[in-house]
Order: sequence, then structure tokens, then C-alpha cells
Amino acid sequence: MSEREALVVEPLRLALVGCGRIAQVAHLPALEKAAGVELVAVVDPSQEVARAVARRYGVPAAYTAQEQVLADPAVEAVLVAAPDRFHYPIAAEALTAGKHVLVEKPLAATSAEAEALVELVDRTGLVLQVGAMKRHDQGLQYARGFVAERLGEVRSFNAWYRIGDLRPGIEATLFPYVYADQAARESETAFKADRQRYLLATHGAHIFDTVRFLLGDVGSVIARHRQHGRDQVWQVLLTMASGAIGTVSITVDVPGVPSEGIEVFGASGSIRVDTPFPFYRQASSVRAYADGETVMPELTDGDAYERQAEAFARAVREGSRPVPDVRDGLHAIRLIEATAAADGEEITL
Amino acid sequence: MSEREALVVEPLRLALVGCGRIAQVAHLPALEKAAGVELVAVVDPSQEVARAVARRYGVPAAYTAQEQVLADPAVEAVLVAAPDRFHYPIAAEALTAGKHVLVEKPLAATSAEAEALVELVDRTGLVLQVGAMKRHDQGLQYARGFVAERLGEVRSFNAWYRIGDLRPGIEATLFPYVYADQAARESETAFKADRQRYLLATHGAHIFDTVRFLLGDVGSVIARHRQHGRDQVWQVLLTMASGAIGTVSITVDVPGVPSEGIEVFGASGSIRVDTPFPFYRQASSVRAYADGETVMPELTDGDAYERQAEAFARAVREGSRPVPDVRDGLHAIRLIEATAAADGEEITL
Amino acid sequence: MSEREALVVEPLRLALVGCGRIAQVAHLPALEKAAGVELVAVVDPSQEVARAVARRYGVPAAYTAQEQVLADPAVEAVLVAAPDRFHYPIAAEALTAGKHVLVEKPLAATSAEAEALVELVDRTGLVLQVGAMKRHDQGLQYARGFVAERLGEVRSFNAWYRIGDLRPGIEATLFPYVYADQAARESETAFKADRQRYLLATHGAHIFDTVRFLLGDVGSVIARHRQHGRDQVWQVLLTMASGAIGTVSITVDVPGVPSEGIEVFGASGSIRVDTPFPFYRQASSVRAYADGETVMPELTDGDAYERQAEAFARAVREGSRPVPDVRDGLHAIRLIEATAAADGEEITL
Amino acid sequence: MSEREALVVEPLRLALVGCGRIAQVAHLPALEKAAGVELVAVVDPSQEVARAVARRYGVPAAYTAQEQVLADPAVEAVLVAAPDRFHYPIAAEALTAGKHVLVEKPLAATSAEAEALVELVDRTGLVLQVGAMKRHDQGLQYARGFVAERLGEVRSFNAWYRIGDLRPGIEATLFPYVYADQAARESETAFKADRQRYLLATHGAHIFDTVRFLLGDVGSVIARHRQHGRDQVWQVLLTMASGAIGTVSITVDVPGVPSEGIEVFGASGSIRVDTPFPFYRQASSVRAYADGETVMPELTDGDAYERQAEAFARAVREGSRPVPDVRDGLHAIRLIEATAAADGEEITL
Repeated sequence: MSEREALVVEPLRLALVGCGRIAQVAHLPALEKAAGVELVAVVDPSQEVARAVARRYGVPAAYTAQEQVLADPAVEAVLVAAPDRFHYPIAAEALTAGKHVLVEKPLAATSAEAEALVELVDRTGLVLQVGAMKRHDQGLQYARGFVAERLGEVRSFNAWYRIGDLRPGIEATLFPYVYADQAARESETAFKADRQRYLLATHGAHIFDTVRFLLGDVGSVIARHRQHGRDQVWQVLLTMASGAIGTVSITVDVPGVPSEGIEVFGASGSIRVDTPFPFYRQASSVRAYADGETVMPELTDGDAYERQAEAFARAVREGSRPVPDVRDGLHAIRLIEATAAADGEEITL
Repeated sequence: MSEREALVVEPLRLALVGCGRIAQVAHLPALEKAAGVELVAVVDPSQEVARAVARRYGVPAAYTAQEQVLADPAVEAVLVAAPDRFHYPIAAEALTAGKHVLVEKPLAATSAEAEALVELVDRTGLVLQVGAMKRHDQGLQYARGFVAERLGEVRSFNAWYRIGDLRPGIEATLFPYVYADQAARESETAFKADRQRYLLATHGAHIFDTVRFLLGDVGSVIARHRQHGRDQVWQVLLTMASGAIGTVSITVDVPGVPSEGIEVFGASGSIRVDTPFPFYRQASSVRAYADGETVMPELTDGDAYERQAEAFARAVREGSRPVPDVRDGLHAIRLIEATAAADGEEITL
Repeated sequence: MSEREALVVEPLRLALVGCGRIAQVAHLPALEKAAGVELVAVVDPSQEVARAVARRYGVPAAYTAQEQVLADPAVEAVLVAAPDRFHYPIAAEALTAGKHVLVEKPLAATSAEAEALVELVDRTGLVLQVGAMKRHDQGLQYARGFVAERLGEVRSFNAWYRIGDLRPGIEATLFPYVYADQAARESETAFKADRQRYLLATHGAHIFDTVRFLLGDVGSVIARHRQHGRDQVWQVLLTMASGAIGTVSITVDVPGVPSEGIEVFGASGSIRVDTPFPFYRQASSVRAYADGETVMPELTDGDAYERQAEAFARAVREGSRPVPDVRDGLHAIRLIEATAAADGEEITL
Repeated sequence: MSEREALVVEPLRLALVGCGRIAQVAHLPALEKAAGVELVAVVDPSQEVARAVARRYGVPAAYTAQEQVLADPAVEAVLVAAPDRFHYPIAAEALTAGKHVLVEKPLAATSAEAEALVELVDRTGLVLQVGAMKRHDQGLQYARGFVAERLGEVRSFNAWYRIGDLRPGIEATLFPYVYADQAARESETAFKADRQRYLLATHGAHIFDTVRFLLGDVGSVIARHRQHGRDQVWQVLLTMASGAIGTVSITVDVPGVPSEGIEVFGASGSIRVDTPFPFYRQASSVRAYADGETVMPELTDGDAYERQAEAFARAVREGSRPVPDVRDGLHAIRLIEATAAADGEEITL
């Protein structure tokens, strides 16, 4: 076996930083099955949660402070699943400590923080991948190929991200039992109290990244926002660097089931992508039209979190560009900030 | 039988002005079956076409000049199906001659013309109905009822009107044999040469009227347009008088089948309406969500042109407000003009 | 121009025998547009109906007796659209008179009559095509190609033909104005009084022909029938000559919209075909699965009656086998008779 | 608090017998979340598997012999998830030991065994519920209510159960990491070697139970089976005790995705139920038509295994009839045996 092959087959020794809800419902089940990844430690401020999670998933180490994991030479990389406001400090410390980083989206709380991470990644040469896991959705990957090869010059598009008010019931069914520290849960709820800001960041990080994944860079943004009690609507008109024009609608909470997707129209084809709520573990369903027929790929590898972890391990082992990378994460935040700032006037990016 | 009942049962004596394609594929088959309507004359500059049509549909009079029909005391009302640029002069002359008018959309070529018709209708007290026949689509009527009664405060919406490049083949199948005057056909093609203006007017007259039908008046418009060879895209961000915000996308020609519809999201429900190409004679399909279930009405009375003609006859006989009326027609033109004028800045209506 | 090319471009001079409802709603609009066909005469016992139809469609001759048309040397072929019980005598006389025949399905009232027509066709060498027009549906033709080339050995299938109780409302919308002779209409209704026999024949002629078109000959039939007031159900278990096994369900009247289709499962692929009510003039929608993707052709040439007439003209001009031919028509009747006779026991064909 | 209320709130102390694949992918995640159930012991012949499962789910006792659990007074009830051929002996011993039983479907390997269980349940007065968990699918429960209240007299139906060849890929995504004893796995594979018998029993137990759940008892069965290499097809024509007639198709392995459902047609309504692969944890999607509209309930509580466990606990605590009960389990086996025995002749049940 050559040295390179040996590197490839050696699983990436990963630590999970933050064992809250997203870690337990998305990352831990995915990491347990992901090829090329070995979860060697978990970290959570709640010792009870860290230990429960470690026992369930057979993880050898359960820490309560990230310093412990950053000092652990067995750890090559960290997956940052802590609350949004900690993404930047944890990712920065991990890079400084020489660890590769897979950080949940959004990359950071502000574009200034994200720019600092760009600089740090460039300086250290380490791998930083942003956890916009939909880039690893088989359906969106199929769509990207179709847009590049069959659809022709992109002319228009419409994207939407609607959190339906039936989502809590769906989550109650799909989520596994979650170990929780009551104090932590209440404290986190307080941080999400700026609902307008939180919702735009957490959902916008997905849908804006999807738009860029399929259609390239955004030239300008015109946005309008309305609030109705707790509910929020953003309607955004995008002009792409390529000249294509389209819309993005973000709505929370819409009566009914969640709905997320994009339609793209080009010179020689068109495509519709419907992305299911991720915890159904189904790839996006795709309807791709060209040359008189609509093709729907039947895709079975539907756990985007598992695929994301495997892609991260490959990027570290192969030294390839992670997808999405730190600059993709920065662009998503800039789009969120432009959308938050705009009220009917055009903002050039 | 009372005098009023006598009025109701007396069919409206209608003349068709303009026997071109839309008259032959939409209006004549509808008028032949519509209850409460009697087609007593047809007018077309081509004597050959006028006669062929009259023979086929058993119409007693075939004229070549509208003056003849306006002077005919047997004619109570005219249906104006002449090319767009003649809508205003014919409608104005007909009203002046004391005839009720059903005029194909768009109501007129400019808002100035439309305003003149508003004034004329107010002065004469005659009925003028605009041929935005989708207001008589059973599905859109169901949607309007649902929006008013179940959906709650409207918060956001997305509407689209996409002419697919498969439409010519569909038309070739659905349209009956069409009698044509070759000279007239060529001359008309020349008038549609300003494709950007023609397409926005002809399609915008539908989709903007649908938005107003379901959601009320529009407060402001932000629009962007792109041209790609012969193809055109408009992306429009609307702020409604009610505070709701939404988008309208108009695209011609998209690869694939035609697609037209609207989704509306409210405080307590949501609705999606897909409007088929009208010559399938199918009502819009509706999915209306509220209270944990989605309802889809199965609607069979799918010829909106026939229903439009019947509604016009009732409006004349009953003296009720026609739907859509002359002011609705004016508003649709103002939206078209605002969309044509805007390039990323907000235009208040 | 070669002699053969001259033959091809010479339109087939056709007479329509029987101008009742199916003639007016299906055949006349189709014949007016069909390439390669010239309608030179119509025949109906009601002079009023024959003349009205001839005037509307510009047909030069309107007869009241089929003898007139059979004696007319200008007529090369007849389309028999008379009531079912006249299919055999008219077709037989026409063949005897040297005319090619396109006869509405079912080919005849009994298999004995159908066998006589087989013999007559063989003897005269004339073209007889059965009006099971779904064989000319673009979607079913696509499906046939897919079954032959991609689906592999056929293993199972399920077909259904459900007349929904919403059909009358749909017909009222889709059908053009129909000229009717009241006496004839009442007399025909009496002949349809044996509803069980009429329904099985008229609908079975379609669905059994579709099964044979896609899957080849039937080996045996096991059927069960139930009547509920006016409503009828047949459930049929078919064993094909190829070894495939499947079911056919015929139900009249089911609450709701009409529904007709077939699903076929093979060694390497599967296909679902949904055939719309024919007067929507839409090709069957097809979902063809193989090799990890489902393909849906977008088909626009949706008037199966028009395509049927064009195919008939080509068969006459080119001397090719008509589709479906007289033996296909005979097989459909044998399947109808076996289904009518069976009550739970197997009948070998 | 009354004595009865105290009983209701006391969770049912349950032991899981058999910790193989179905236990790990279906029952353990469901039991961990089910209200009113406390998992107090697990049993598996492999000590390694029993311990791993107990650690993961925090279960206090891990046994390797069922005798241990039957002797444990803390255990009130057992869930039998051992291989099919052990259903009868384990359930019989558990009942004899005074434990309530929830037994995976099929209830037993033969109708003789199932009859013995009926006798034992009657004698002991204990609760035995069969694990045909689809009866606890929200969508099928909605369908049952609709059939009873809105659909009117049932006239015909079509049911299907198709295992698609894409299922292994879907399972690889949806299933959690599974602890396995390699020797046990190989030994079990050998017992499934009679693929025809195994497949009919394992899938028939679902679809026949669904038919009875919605439509009542079956009067007779006419069935035909074909084998193609490893693949199997059964086509079954059912005559219900009520007089309704319908079909059931069972096919393994069809190219493509799994598909399971039933359509039922009645005097005043009709319904279509599509049951997703259960590990998506989605309720069946339902389209219920009556009175001019189709209703689709949006159901979020989609884990039928969790709902089944909760219903079992309620049946034990409330002394109510379990669903499905031991006689339902017996009927399902009789239908499987009749289908296996039949080859084109009618078998009365």
C-alpha cells in the first residue's frame, strides 16, 4: 500500500464541539455511519449531556471545555455545532490550534468575523468547510450538473424557503430522543429572541448558498421585509453577475408544511428542485426538462449530513477545496446582511 | 311572467367585432354555447373570413365595417376582439353609439386611453367588461373565496406567467381550423414586432389582473427586465396596499410547457392555484390549505370564455357591475406601464 | 414528382357515415385538420343534422342513406361512426362496395360478426382500421416503444378504466355545440338500455386493446362482475401469452373524475401511463423508469382522433397494415365476451 | 388522583425480545419516545448485541435468554421482534407466563399456530396485539374513518405492495447503525431462503391486513403467482363479504422505488392512500374525494411504530381490544395461505 492510499483509508479523527439539538438530531447519527470519519471526542458545557451522548454513540472522550479537545493531539478536526454566536470564536481557536474545521452554517455572526476566518484559513492552510449541507444533497448536485451542461444560459429563477407551522409536529416525529440541559436550553432561547435577525441568518444561510451553488455570484440585491406578529417575510429580487434575474422568498411561519426549492429557466432547459425537510433523509426531488422530456433522477443516498461529513474527510485527506469553503460562507453572510439592510433600494455586492 | 323575468330570459343580442384568431379559437365556440347570449352579427375587414365564420356558426349578419354593426338596432352589445391597438377606438365608438361592450384585454393601448374609457362609461352608464376571462375561471373564483374567508391576513405571494416554447405545438392541437386572411395576418405580425412591449402587455394584463382579483390594489412596483435574443424576463416585486409583499415573474419563452399560477400565504391558510393553458378548457387546479387539511375542488365548468360571456349578459340584463370593469382594466394597464418603466427603483401607483 | 409521391400527397377522399355525437365531438373537428384527408361527404338519417354538419365543416355532399355514399365514385373510404349495432352491416357493405373502412370501436357487436369482417378484409384486400384511437395517442406509442426496448421481460401490470360521475359536466364544457335529431337521440338511448353489456363493450374495447397494444396477446381471463343499481364493476385477472400476469379494472360510475391508465413492471424498468379524457386533446402522460431515472416525455400532439385519421390515410395510400387492424378488433371483442361470460373461473382464449 | 388515573399514567414495563435489525431500526427508537411505555429489559441470543443496545438506549437489563425476562416480575409485557418462526413459541410462552404480548407480524408461521394463540388469548384474558403497525398510521386511520362515514357502500378497490429494487439504498440511508452478530445474521439468511414463502408472508401480512382494516372480511380469493428468477409476482382477485370486489398485487422486486397503497371506490366517494416506506416516518398520504372536492389531510405524527407501542400500552392499561388483535392476525395468515395455495381457482375463506 502506498503512503497516499494509507492516508486515504485512515479515518479522520473528529471531535464534535457542542452536543445540543442539531448535534444530536443531525450530526451524531450521520457521523456514526459516515465512511472515513471516526468520532473521537465530544464537548459540551453540560457534563450530563456530553456523557449521555458519548455513551449512546460509543465515543471514547466526553469533555466539557473546548480547550481540552483542542489540546488533545488525537483530534485532527472539529465539527462546530455550538450556537451561532460561538461559530467564529470556536472556529478561530480551532484553526489556531492546528485543527481542521467543519462549522455549522452560518459561518459566523457577521461578515467581519467571516472575513477574519478567511484570513486565518489562508494563513494556516487548514481546511475549513461550512456546514451548508445542502451542497451535498444528491438532488442539488444533480441540478448543478444539469444547469452547467444542459440548461444553457441561465435567464431567470425563483427560489423559496418556507418554514411551515406544521414543522414542530414533524420534528417531534423525526427527531430521536434528545438529551438536554434545561438551563442551557433556556439561555439559548433568549439568544434567539431577535427573531427577525435569527430567522434570516439561519434560513438565509441555506437558500442564498443554494442560489450561489447553482447560479454563481450575486451582483445586487433588492429586498423588502414585513413582520406580522412573530411571523416574517422577505421578498428579494436578485440580479446575478451572469445577468440572470430572479427572486428569493423567505417566509416564517407559513400555515402548512415546510417547503423549500428553486426553479431555474435557461436557454435550452429548465429545472425544478424541491428540497424536503432534511430529517426525512431524502435527496431533493428534481424535474429537469430539456429536449422534449422531463427527467427525474431517483436518488437514494439522502442523508446530506452524512455525505457532508464524508466530503469533509475527503477534503482533509486529499487536500482538496472543501465545499462550501470559507469564502462561500462569507458570501452567504454578505447576502444575509444586504437583505437585512435593504428596504426597496438596490444594494450592490 | 313579470317584466323583470322577461328581461332576464331575453338573450343579449351581441355582435362580434374582429374575427381573427382569438375570435375563432376562443369566443365563437364559447358564444355558440353560452346561455343568455345570441350572436346576431360578425364583423371583419375580410369579407371572406366574416362570411366563413358566419356560415360555420349560423350567424345571420356578416359585416366588413364596424359602422354597419353600430348602426344596426338589433345589436345591443359588441365583443371587441380586434387587435390591441383598436380596442380603444372601437370600444369608444360602440359606447358612443349606445352599445354595451365586452373588450378583449388589455382594455387599451395606454393608460390615457383607458382613462378616457372610464370617463365614457361613467357618462353613458353603459356596461363595459374587460375580457380578462380568468376572473371567470371557477378555480380562481374558488381561490378568491378562500382568500377572503379562510386564509386570513395576506402576508406574501408569488405569481408566475411563463409561456413555454411547447405552446405552438399545443395550440396546433387544441385550436380548431382557423379561417385567415393572409394579408391581415402579415400586417398584424408587423404590429407585434415590438415584442417586449407586446408580450408584457398581453401577458401582464392577465397576471396583474389575477393578483388584483385575489389580493386587492397594488401600492408599489419594483421591476427588472432582461432580454435574451427574442426571449424576455420580467421579475417584479410588489407591495400591496394591504401590506402584503410578493413577486410576479413573467417569462417568454421558457423551454417546456406553459405554466401560470399563484401561491398566496396568509395568517391562517395558504393556497396554490395552477391555471392551465386556457384552451384545455379546464378550471384552474387549486390546493387550499387551512386547519390541517388541503382541499382541492374538482371543477368541471372549465371554459372561462363561455362563463365570461354569460357573466357579461347577466351584467347587462341585471345592471350589475361587470367583472372586471373598466377601472380594473385601467389598473392592469397602469401596472404594465409601471413594470415597463421600472429598472430596479420603486414606482408608487 | 414520382408516381408514389403523387399517391402520397393525394388526400384520401373520405365519407363520414353517421353524424351523431361522437362524429360531431370527435371526428369532424379532427378530419377538418387532419393531413392527407379530405372529407367529401357526410351521411345521416336525419337530413337536418347531415346538412347542418356539412354546412359547418364545408363538406360538399350531405346524404341521408349510406347507399348514396357507397355508390359515389368520389368516395374512396368511409369512417363508420354510426351506433355500435350498425358497425358490422355498414362496414361489410362498404368493403363489398370496394371502400376502405375506418370503423369506430367496438369493431362489431359480436365476435361472429367480427370474424365475418376478418374474412371479408382478407378477401377484398381493402384496408379496415378499427377506431381504437388510443393506439395513436403519442403517450401510449411512447410507452409501447419503452416496453419493447427498455422495460425488459414484462412481469406484471395493472390497468384501469374508470368513468367518473363528473364526466357529464366535463363533456358539457369540452364538447362543441351538437346538432341533434331528437327522435334519433331517444331511439338510441333505448338501445343502450342494456347498460351492463353496453358499458363493458364500449369501455372494454379501449382498455383491452391498450393491454394488447403494449403487452401482446392474452392467454386467459378470470373475471368477476358486480352491479350496484346503475353502476357496474368488472375486476379481471389476465394471464398473458408471454407469462406476465396482471389486472384490469373497469368501473362505471365512480364518484369523481374519469381515470384511465396502466402500470407495467418488467425486468429492468417500469412505466405508468395516465390517459386523460380524450376531449382534453392531451397525449397520455407517461412516467418511464429505468436505470435510476424516471423520464416523462412532454408530448404536444394530443388529438388522437386526428392522428388516427392521418394514420388511416397513410395505411390506405401506402398499403401498410392499419393499426389496429381487423384482427385486433376481433381480439378486443373476444376479451369483452370472455369477461362478460366469466364469473370467477378461468377462460382460455 | 383516582386509582384508574394512576393506572393510566403508570408506564407499561416492557421487554424487547429479539434485538435484530427490525428491533434496532424500528422498535428501539420508537420505544424510547413512546408515551406510556418504559423499556425495562432487552433479550438477544447475542450478549454483545443485547449489551450494545441496552447501553445505547439506557435499558437497565440485557438478557440472553427469554426465560430470564419471562421470570422477571418487573416485566409486564413483551414485544416479540425475533425471526418469524419464533413468533408463535415466544408469544405462547409469554402468555403462559402471564405477560401481555405485542408480536411482530406475521402473528405466526401457520394458521394452526395462530389458532393456538387465539385459544391462549381467550383463556388467559391477556392482551395480544399484532405488530401490523400500519393500523396506527394516521393516514390509514383517516382513510378508515372516511370509508365508514363518507365513501358509501364500497364497490371496488385496488391495492398494491411493490418492493422496489432501490429499497436497499434507501434503507442504507434511513437505518441507524445496526449492531449485528455475524453468525446470527448468516443463520437467519438461510431461513429466508424459501424466498417465495418468506416474501408472501412478510409483505402479505401488511397488505391483507390493510384491506381488512379498511374494508372488512374477505369472502374468497382467486390468486395467480409467477416467479422470474429471484423476483415474484402475485395477482389476487378478492371478493369481500360485503360484496365489493377488488385486486391485490404483490411484486418483489420491481425496478424503482417501493410503492404501497390502495384505492377504494364507493357509492358516494373514493379514496386513494399511498403509504410511504415506513422508515421515512411519514403518515400515508391520502386523497379523499366526496361531494365535488378532494381532501388531503396533512398529518405529522408519522412514526407508526411509536404510535403502535402507545396503543398497545393503552390497550393493556384500559383493558380495551388491541388493534389488530389475535383474530386479525389469524385472518391475515389465512389470506396468505389461500393466496399461496391458489392457482386460478376460487378459495372461499
